[in-house]
Amino acid sequence: MYSASVTAPVNIATLKYWGKRDKSLNLPTNSSISVTLSQDDLRTLTTASASESFEKDQLWLNGKLESLDTPRTQACLADLRKLRASIEQSPDTPKLSQMKLHIVSENNFPTAAGLASSAAGFAALVSAIAKLYELPQDMSELSKIARKGSGSACRSLFGGFVAWEMGTLPDGQDSKAVEIAPLEHWPSLRAVILVVSDDKKDTPSTTGMQSTVATSDLFAHRIAEVVPQRFEAMKKAILDKDFPKFAELTMKDSNSFHAVCLDSYPPIFYLNDTSKKIIKMVETINQQEVVAAYTFDAGPNAVIYYDEANQDKVLSLLYKHFGHVPGWKTHYTAETPVAGVSRIIQTSIGPGPQETSESLTK
Amino acid sequence: MYSASVTAPVNIATLKYWGKRDKSLNLPTNSSISVTLSQDDLRTLTTASASESFEKDQLWLNGKLESLDTPRTQACLADLRKLRASIEQSPDTPKLSQMKLHIVSENNFPTAAGLASSAAGFAALVSAIAKLYELPQDMSELSKIARKGSGSACRSLFGGFVAWEMGTLPDGQDSKAVEIAPLEHWPSLRAVILVVSDDKKDTPSTTGMQSTVATSDLFAHRIAEVVPQRFEAMKKAILDKDFPKFAELTMKDSNSFHAVCLDSYPPIFYLNDTSKKIIKMVETINQQEVVAAYTFDAGPNAVIYYDEANQDKVLSLLYKHFGHVPGWKTHYTAETPVAGVSRIIQTSIGPGPQETSESLTK
Repeated sequence: MYSASVTAPVNIATLKYWGKRDKSLNLPTNSSISVTLSQDDLRTLTTASASESFEKDQLWLNGKLESLDTPRTQACLADLRKLRASIEQSPDTPKLSQMKLHIVSENNFPTAAGLASSAAGFAALVSAIAKLYELPQDMSELSKIARKGSGSACRSLFGGFVAWEMGTLPDGQDSKAVEIAPLEHWPSLRAVILVVSDDKKDTPSTTGMQSTVATSDLFAHRIAEVVPQRFEAMKKAILDKDFPKFAELTMKDSNSFHAVCLDSYPPIFYLNDTSKKIIKMVETINQQEVVAAYTFDAGPNAVIYYDEANQDKVLSLLYKHFGHVPGWKTHYTAETPVAGVSRIIQTSIGPGPQETSESLTK
Repeated sequence: MYSASVTAPVNIATLKYWGKRDKSLNLPTNSSISVTLSQDDLRTLTTASASESFEKDQLWLNGKLESLDTPRTQACLADLRKLRASIEQSPDTPKLSQMKLHIVSENNFPTAAGLASSAAGFAALVSAIAKLYELPQDMSELSKIARKGSGSACRSLFGGFVAWEMGTLPDGQDSKAVEIAPLEHWPSLRAVILVVSDDKKDTPSTTGMQSTVATSDLFAHRIAEVVPQRFEAMKKAILDKDFPKFAELTMKDSNSFHAVCLDSYPPIFYLNDTSKKIIKMVETINQQEVVAAYTFDAGPNAVIYYDEANQDKVLSLLYKHFGHVPGWKTHYTAETPVAGVSRIIQTSIGPGPQETSESLTK
């Protein structure tokens, strides 16, 4: 049996991916930018094994047998096997591409938290198999494969600040992740995730995206005019370590994304009244100087970025209202409890996928 | 003493006015469309009196002395006096333009309901004084004066279906209300207003509009592309009495307006979780056929339009969840109470300002 284990991180977009121009290849209608979060707090660990004795490809996710028979997972496996086959010319090289795979995967965070785990999941799957297969391709090349599993997964193949360049080719060969700046460029960036309770089921993001592309009258303008300018401006803000500018662009893009959701027909709502209270708190924190940036994905959870230097300023106000929920690493004064948040995750910017000696067995 | 009394209606836009190109003249960035509601349920009654014995212009609103010293009210009074002065050439004509005015005004609906009463208020003020002054100007001409008081007030000078043509002249002489179709064209149109409780103060609409114009990246596209097409399509749907089309355009425009609010920086939120539940209910009502149209102004209250023929279908589902609140004229089965609505107002399309023999004294 051959085996390799890798951990991969969660990433949270600061310039949102919303809209596919090709659904089966997960090709986006716009380029996006994300920050990779620390794997100490949020990661997927995946062990990929190949053996002559395996009868079929199988996946165990958090201890449960899951189907590998989805077109997206199949596309990833087929691409990886093809790359492996191309380096199996020598008779000494084991023919791993012809063996079945067992993939065992675990998240270190509760699925119930409603955090999009598919990005870390597909990034770990692709990285682990690439490691097992000893593929020579670089991370950008592998990101195209992860992208076919879940669009935003391509960004989890790098640490630090990552761009997903949308590309223009119909086959997606130029739609890949690239590093804007590594973790070491701005290691003091921090993030706090506020897990917001919600009584309704959110619209799945693939369904939501397609509805927005098909029905929103404002969407085309976001894609053609707003995002391209913001993409360049945000890259510059990151390279300049200009937090106020980075924060403004991040908050504006979150708002713009939720605006085109609301402009869809029927409208899609991801922000709830608690999300809005959190936005107001960030506005209060930022009253004198912009030191915090909120962003919301396809759900009510808030992610708030800040620099370590401003940690007390940012966290003390949030603690005031949410100090009663679990997850805090630093403590302040709890004053007026606000309902609607079930836990917080205090984390920071982190590296890309890592090899690990830890390994999972089903 | 000379005196005249008029009642004026509330109107609820189906194509929203959001954005001023001239703040002091209340000139809009886009044309808008509204339906005038019945004065049986919602109206302002205003008595305007002029007398040599009055020492100053005074206004009593719902029994309380209010200031007339706002630039907007002063602009209305100055315009009306100027028109009156131009017909006071004959020595027999009383010089009403030189006398002070007492204006007494009352709404037949609770101010606490949070229904924008300024449109009915300024429409009644301008109509009552125009009546007192026996001005020969038509309603479109008078609408330009009411517009200076409160932009949307210009639409309350007509009954039925009303367009406010934005105009292009810098002095606003072509920015006026016109009738698209009278009440008699589609008298079976009904409206139910769900008054939604909210614990936060909404952003005042003038402040909100200016923030949107200045900061939303999607707003320019709404104004340049989306609204002009929708304006023509909605006029056609009204003239064709095509309810499904009228409803779709109305709901889309409400969503578009709230989308550009959310795209403002900082974002403006008028819809709350109760508003969203009402949208979902309307989607349920419309599952087989579009028989109801929601629209939301600068606050969480919902206005739902429907045709009398579908009244049971529309109201029975709303009654199921909101049957426990006051205001229903027809009754169904109350099942699962949903919180967040404090009262409902069941009303219908109605006529423009009406002379009345009823008169108010301070």
